[in-house]
Amino acid sequence: MTSPLLPEGTGITRVVCEQLAPQVGELAHNMELALDAVRRALADRADIVVLPELTTSGYVFADADEARRTAITAADAFFTDLSDLLAGTRTVVVLGFCEDDGPALYNSAAVVDASGVRAVYRKTHLWDRETLFFTPGERMAPVVTTPHGRVGVLICYDLEFPEMPRRLATAGADLIVVPTNWPLEQRPADERPAEIIQAQAAARANGLYIACADRGGTERGQAWTQGTAVINQYGWLTATADGQSQRIVADLFLRLSREKTLSPHNDLLGDRRPDLYSQESPQL
Amino acid sequence: MTSPLLPEGTGITRVVCEQLAPQVGELAHNMELALDAVRRALADRADIVVLPELTTSGYVFADADEARRTAITAADAFFTDLSDLLAGTRTVVVLGFCEDDGPALYNSAAVVDASGVRAVYRKTHLWDRETLFFTPGERMAPVVTTPHGRVGVLICYDLEFPEMPRRLATAGADLIVVPTNWPLEQRPADERPAEIIQAQAAARANGLYIACADRGGTERGQAWTQGTAVINQYGWLTATADGQSQRIVADLFLRLSREKTLSPHNDLLGDRRPDLYSQESPQL
Repeated sequence: MTSPLLPEGTGITRVVCEQLAPQVGELAHNMELALDAVRRALADRADIVVLPELTTSGYVFADADEARRTAITAADAFFTDLSDLLAGTRTVVVLGFCEDDGPALYNSAAVVDASGVRAVYRKTHLWDRETLFFTPGERMAPVVTTPHGRVGVLICYDLEFPEMPRRLATAGADLIVVPTNWPLEQRPADERPAEIIQAQAAARANGLYIACADRGGTERGQAWTQGTAVINQYGWLTATADGQSQRIVADLFLRLSREKTLSPHNDLLGDRRPDLYSQESPQL
Repeated sequence: MTSPLLPEGTGITRVVCEQLAPQVGELAHNMELALDAVRRALADRADIVVLPELTTSGYVFADADEARRTAITAADAFFTDLSDLLAGTRTVVVLGFCEDDGPALYNSAAVVDASGVRAVYRKTHLWDRETLFFTPGERMAPVVTTPHGRVGVLICYDLEFPEMPRRLATAGADLIVVPTNWPLEQRPADERPAEIIQAQAAARANGLYIACADRGGTERGQAWTQGTAVINQYGWLTATADGQSQRIVADLFLRLSREKTLSPHNDLLGDRRPDLYSQESPQL
C-alpha cells in the first residue's frame, strides 16, 4: 500500500484498519502487537487507527478465569505506552480490550490519543459465549470529538442493531469505528459477508462513514470472517482486507457526512418520523 | 418460469412480484395491467402477489391536478373487480394506488383478498416531488394476518428507515411486502442497487422475508432501478428480476421467520436494548 504524504488541511482523514491476530491470554504479546500496528499506522500518517475487538486479550476464552487473567483497567500502563507513542500527533486509536472493573468484566473499546484515554465504551450487545464472561454495558455508545471529526464507537454485534448506528448519527457522528471479531459464517458463493452488508446499509441509512477492523488468523479452531472494511457515506465499500493484505488505508472526506440532503425535498435524518416509530403497528 | 403444482399444507408460500410498467395518468389501462398481472399470478398458484407503488396511477405526475385525476378510494370498483378475481382462492394481493381522501391525496398500498380490501397503508416517508402531491400517512404501517402468515406493508422510501421494518418485526411480521418505484441511481460497477442492500440488511436484522416489486419501463424520462427482489430471513437474495424477466416467483417457508434464535445465548429481537436506545449518546 503506497502512502503519499498528504498536506495538512486538505480535509482528508486517513483511516487505517489492521486485522490483527492476537493470541488468547497472551497479554504482553498482544499489547506489543497492538503497539506495532500503531507504529505502522503512524508511519503511514494515519489520523484514525482501528484495531479489532479484544485486541489485548484474544477472544475464545476457555472460561471466566481465563478472561479475568487478561483483564486490564483503562489506567493500565499499556494505555500510557500507547498514548506516549501518539505524542506530538493528532492520531486517534480505537481498539478493543478486556476491561477489569472489580467484580465485572466488560468487552470494551478505548479511544486513545496523545492526551490519554479519551473514552471507554462497554459493548452493550453481547454475542453467544461472551455472555458467560462479560457484563453488558449500561451506557449508550459515545461520540468522541476529534480534530478529524466526530467519531462514534460500536463493537461487533452492536452494529447489527440498527438502533445503534442511528443513535450515533443523530448524536452527530461523522464516522463510526467498529472493533470486531466476526466469527466466519457460511454464505452464498460470491456474496460478501452479511455483516458488511449490514454495515453498508447502516452507512447509507445514516449518511456516515463506517470503519470495521476484524480479526485475522484463527483462534482455538475459530475462523474469522476477516471482513475488515471501510464504507463511505453512500454505503459503498472504499477498501476491504483481502487475501493479500490484513491492513487497509482509506482517505476519507469525513465532512461529507454532514451533508444529509438527498433531494430538494428530503433530508436523511430530518425525514425520520419519531412520532410514528413509537406507535404500535395496526394489526389487521 | 416453471410453476410446479404445490400440494396444500407444505408450509410453502408462493410469492409473485411483477415489475409492471403503468402509464402515468392512464387509469383504466393501468387497472387492466394490474388485473392481468394478478391473473398470471393466479395461474401460477401464487399465495401472495406484490405489484409496484402507484400501479393504478403511474408516478411522474406533471402537477397536483394530474395526480388528483388518477386518485381513487378504497371503495373503487377496481378493488371489487380485483377481489372478485380472487374469489375461491386464498391469494392476497398488495399493490400501490393514488388514494383520494377528500382534500388529501395519499400514496397508498392496498392489501386485497377474496373478502375485499383488508388494509390500506398510507406511505409515511415521501420521496422528493411526492411531497408536492401527497399528504404523508399518520399511522404506522400495518401487519395483516393472512392464511400464509403475517404480512407487513411498506412503500419504497419507507424501507430506508430501519425503524420501519423493525417496528413490523416486533409486531410479528413474517414477510414485509414493498410496492416500490425506485428511481435509477448511479452505483459502482458490479454492485447491486443500494436499496436492495438496505432490504437485505433489514431482512437479516429482523429475521424475516422481504418482497419488493419495483417499476419496469421508463416514465417521462425517469428510468427505474428495476430492482424487484425477494430476500430471505437471513438477508440473502432468493430471486431477482433481470433483463430476461419482469416477474419473479419465489417459494418461501415463511414460518422460518418465527425462529429468532441465533445462538444458545442470543435471540435476534430479544437482544435489543430499548432502554439504551432512548439514552443520549455520551458526547466526549
